[in-house]
Amino acid sequence: MAYPIRFITFEGPEGAGKSTQCARLAEWLRARGDDVLTTRQPGGDPVGKRLREILLGGADGDVTDRAELLMMMADRSQSVAKIIRPHLAKGGTVLCDRYADSSLAYQGYGRGIDLEFVSTLNEFAVEGLWPDLTLLLDIDPAEGLARQMARTRMEEEAIDFHRRVHAGFLAIARQNPDRVAVIDADGSLEEVAERIRIAYEAHHRNHASA
Amino acid sequence: MAYPIRFITFEGPEGAGKSTQCARLAEWLRARGDDVLTTRQPGGDPVGKRLREILLGGADGDVTDRAELLMMMADRSQSVAKIIRPHLAKGGTVLCDRYADSSLAYQGYGRGIDLEFVSTLNEFAVEGLWPDLTLLLDIDPAEGLARQMARTRMEEEAIDFHRRVHAGFLAIARQNPDRVAVIDADGSLEEVAERIRIAYEAHHRNHASA
Repeated sequence: MAYPIRFITFEGPEGAGKSTQCARLAEWLRARGDDVLTTRQPGGDPVGKRLREILLGGADGDVTDRAELLMMMADRSQSVAKIIRPHLAKGGTVLCDRYADSSLAYQGYGRGIDLEFVSTLNEFAVEGLWPDLTLLLDIDPAEGLARQMARTRMEEEAIDFHRRVHAGFLAIARQNPDRVAVIDADGSLEEVAERIRIAYEAHHRNHASA
Repeated sequence: MAYPIRFITFEGPEGAGKSTQCARLAEWLRARGDDVLTTRQPGGDPVGKRLREILLGGADGDVTDRAELLMMMADRSQSVAKIIRPHLAKGGTVLCDRYADSSLAYQGYGRGIDLEFVSTLNEFAVEGLWPDLTLLLDIDPAEGLARQMARTRMEEEAIDFHRRVHAGFLAIARQNPDRVAVIDADGSLEEVAERIRIAYEAHHRNHASA
């Protein structure tokens, strides 16, 4: 029997196309018969949606770096307990747009909060639930920001911050080679979707033969 | 020169009269010339007020125990950075209705989350800012609940939970005798206010002579 890939997370810098590719992979898995739920962090359940509004809706500086980290973790705890675990428990597949790696990359590598401490909080929030597969959509941070700016007015954050986040994601991928697949996100929507399907199949085969 | 008591926290079970006594002590200190700010946790700054709504406004079970702890800590980080530190920095006195001890008592002793972990989060949230004096308003938990029920419709929480919280507060007081003064909160508003003023003066003298 093949190793079931039931919980997949999408990670990467802003503007890498995570939401689009998440929806695309969901379609593909549904066509294969999976009962797929897509969700995101922050903002999975009603409590998380309110946290998301606070986190993304305020002016720069309204939320301290420490409170930001703690709210992201509160959202993660809610999302795991109320959304992800229940769907997995009834045999479904969950695709989540951002998960624990984002806190490590943004609040840890990006904002400089102690990495060990962020990891300890992640363990507390996820209560042992780690993804079967993490798709890290990799893109040059400057390129991602440019894509993002074209769509929405972005908060003023230095390119330097985003370079640290990007370096953080790559470090996480190096440290978790069995879980994280790095996907080149430079290309058309179709090209990237195809790379994701190839990574999914490869991960499936590797674990089936393991 | 006397040791300045500039940051005072009120702690204790629900229904002990913390808010009332906090306001009363503020009046008394203002009459003596102090520039007093009263605040509370959760709910000090605008972000904290939104967190408070989520924490206290939902139905029972909407917020996981872990998310509750993390949101309380996020609120504390905001409160310290945006409200308490700025007022202390300009020479004022701050009275805060609930602080770090409440998380240890409620989420630690009450809900059973690891005490060391709660303490680590408290250190992260307060960034070194501990009260000069903590007034622990002590009351029999059953008595406090009865007083509270008379005022508002209270969430269904077992008396057993509140007994653990109460025992937690007393343990904190034993472990921090230099900071925490236990005040018997059984009595008239005036009697309790007088006990608080006596504890304040005693604390002032002790630290002045130290």
